[in-house]
Amino acid sequence: MIKKNVNIAVIGLGQVGNYLLNELNTKKKDIELKTGKSIKIVAISAKNKNKKRKFKINKSIFFNNPLDILKNKSIDVLFEVIGQSDGISKKIVETAIKNKIHVITPNKALISKHGDYLSRLAEMYKVNLEFEASVAGGIPILRTIKEGLATNKLNKVYGILNGTCNYILSEMEKSKDSFLNVLKKAQNLGYAEPGNPKLDLNGYDAFAKVRILSSLAFNNKISKKKCLMEGIENVEYKDIEIASQLNFKIKLLGITEIINGKLFERVHPALVKKDSYIGNVNGVMNAVIVEGVPVGESVLQGEGAGPSATSSALMSDLLSILRGNIKFPFGLPSNKRKNPIPYNEKNSSNSLYLRLEVKDKPGVLSEITTLLSKNKISIQRVIQTPYNKKKLASIVIITHKALEFRSQNLISSLKKNKNVVKKPVLIRLF
Amino acid sequence: MIKKNVNIAVIGLGQVGNYLLNELNTKKKDIELKTGKSIKIVAISAKNKNKKRKFKINKSIFFNNPLDILKNKSIDVLFEVIGQSDGISKKIVETAIKNKIHVITPNKALISKHGDYLSRLAEMYKVNLEFEASVAGGIPILRTIKEGLATNKLNKVYGILNGTCNYILSEMEKSKDSFLNVLKKAQNLGYAEPGNPKLDLNGYDAFAKVRILSSLAFNNKISKKKCLMEGIENVEYKDIEIASQLNFKIKLLGITEIINGKLFERVHPALVKKDSYIGNVNGVMNAVIVEGVPVGESVLQGEGAGPSATSSALMSDLLSILRGNIKFPFGLPSNKRKNPIPYNEKNSSNSLYLRLEVKDKPGVLSEITTLLSKNKISIQRVIQTPYNKKKLASIVIITHKALEFRSQNLISSLKKNKNVVKKPVLIRLF
Repeated sequence: MIKKNVNIAVIGLGQVGNYLLNELNTKKKDIELKTGKSIKIVAISAKNKNKKRKFKINKSIFFNNPLDILKNKSIDVLFEVIGQSDGISKKIVETAIKNKIHVITPNKALISKHGDYLSRLAEMYKVNLEFEASVAGGIPILRTIKEGLATNKLNKVYGILNGTCNYILSEMEKSKDSFLNVLKKAQNLGYAEPGNPKLDLNGYDAFAKVRILSSLAFNNKISKKKCLMEGIENVEYKDIEIASQLNFKIKLLGITEIINGKLFERVHPALVKKDSYIGNVNGVMNAVIVEGVPVGESVLQGEGAGPSATSSALMSDLLSILRGNIKFPFGLPSNKRKNPIPYNEKNSSNSLYLRLEVKDKPGVLSEITTLLSKNKISIQRVIQTPYNKKKLASIVIITHKALEFRSQNLISSLKKNKNVVKKPVLIRLF
Repeated sequence: MIKKNVNIAVIGLGQVGNYLLNELNTKKKDIELKTGKSIKIVAISAKNKNKKRKFKINKSIFFNNPLDILKNKSIDVLFEVIGQSDGISKKIVETAIKNKIHVITPNKALISKHGDYLSRLAEMYKVNLEFEASVAGGIPILRTIKEGLATNKLNKVYGILNGTCNYILSEMEKSKDSFLNVLKKAQNLGYAEPGNPKLDLNGYDAFAKVRILSSLAFNNKISKKKCLMEGIENVEYKDIEIASQLNFKIKLLGITEIINGKLFERVHPALVKKDSYIGNVNGVMNAVIVEGVPVGESVLQGEGAGPSATSSALMSDLLSILRGNIKFPFGLPSNKRKNPIPYNEKNSSNSLYLRLEVKDKPGVLSEITTLLSKNKISIQRVIQTPYNKKKLASIVIITHKALEFRSQNLISSLKKNKNVVKKPVLIRLF
């Protein structure tokens, strides 16, 4: 049981760390009421001591080198809010655990890469490693899977896991504007990293969350296999418009499921029905859908990112520790978590949305449809529109379900075809 | 810390108790893996030993009188699945707690009535009293409020809390059928009690859940004040149809919120926009929306009732106990929970949907609108339709926001008016 007076360190004072610090300071009484413990922030650290921050920091407890905190102070709970997958983030978490300090982090990059090792370490040193904030901040999804739905046999978890991408796709539809213009808007609003938004846009952020969700939902170790990962960088307004005419929306989905005992993880943009639940989750919201037995389908929706939602999750982790809930980080002992058997994604099947820009001359459509038929992909719908001026035409095809390897072969053939003038667009239907 | 081998008793073997028994039997290994504890069902009890049940029961551990179990057996965790608000349910839970037995129950009637007393008792005897299954089975909403959103300042919790009513309203719209016919259908499908569905239909079931949600969300004692409670018994297909033409759906909502430090709880049918989130929760689904700071808006949706969803919640409570999470039943010590200050509902305001059947003669509409104006209720929209044959007309009025006491005065005047031939229908807009 953790002692009555709890010393806390916060490392990393960017937007999230700074907001968290303010929450810790203002919620002390509430925390004591709910847990009987009295917290004290005894050390903080960040790259830049004097940066302008929303909430003032107490510079008298500031350490330039975060590792000095562990040497010089008696800490009970440490927040790692730097966010690197390796380097100083990993070093701090590792060292803290070995010093029998409970660790709380929103760092999905770290957990999805080193979660197995770090949870083993935490179990060995009998401390908590909590990372609720690493997936969908405003939604307590990890706790829901570990506790609320414990003993359910889950078979699928999917949803909208990246608020930045969801904002961009929603806003492109609303404003009829291009990807790049909307990205700039998102950066101005603070929804996307001003410097390097790549990890959000290329699907990596959602992918890291999928890995964490898989291991919790299916009691597996974190998968090391390369996963089908596509971002939204290539989604054009034109595709959103055509999808809308066909009664679809385009969403970036993260999906993990067990198919015949094998783990299939993927992140890609998908056409979802306009009137589906997931089709109506807009803006920076995140949504996670969990399918299991006996619970059926559970849906959770909330703000996905931003300092306030993330802090809410970090605080819930703190309360869990203060209440004395020592738990396995992944819900069961590390040595009982099995390596997942990867599903061969080539055997998965999806209906496809294909958009091709082709030369507007006789015989081209027949050439294209022949290619589909050669690859055993059957067509559900074709829309051909000429652009008179450029002697080009656009062909949009919705296919029946096609095996992934056949789709990939088709795309290769289409790329080689002389009458196809631009890289073909392929978006899977969900 | 609970001991390695855990003895369990299940009292009440209706649909839920019987399903739970099967879950306990089939998930033993999984439970041991996740908690390190080995469970054994050592006693069961129900009214009828020989009733036909979906899953066979072990008659050698059956007790006719459940209280004999507590006298003769060493029990660590007891499930009370009978469901009365008083009587034997209360007696069993009380006695078990006093014998230092952890209690798990889905019994919302019991908890909403005696939750304060029983939680005080559980704290005194240092055992858990868990009731996740009492509100929205498939949604771990109580745990989410107590743990996942702990330290958030919540100001409003609302949603669709009764699956039976939601099924009936959805099905009336779909099948264009009457309330009574759809109720029969619901009973045949097992969604509504065959004998006495009154507690679902009159709003009492949702009301009990609202009380539990309030006390958890706002850290109050359970309110004793009479609450605005209306069921769906008087909703006619005609109203659903007119609402639909006006772009609304009718849903039974349970709402609790803090207004200027005062608690306002209510359950009533409401017109919600067709394209709103809540307007698209159909069938037996439940949905709960939590608004707070810093988390923003969190939405949870899942199956509301039925043995499988309820068992999922009961099992999550068991795991919480086996993991050694001894906690205050309402998230903080009983003596720190304050009595809520009730909000005077007469000061609340809503736009109204009014449907009146009136004599079809000159001057009636002007008489009605004068009544509204006398009560300072302004009109947003009027639709008058004559029924030629009967010399009657229907008047539908959507008002601007009106104070509750004015709406009630208006209804009284309308009831007295000689030209209004049927009890006026009033449904609030949300």
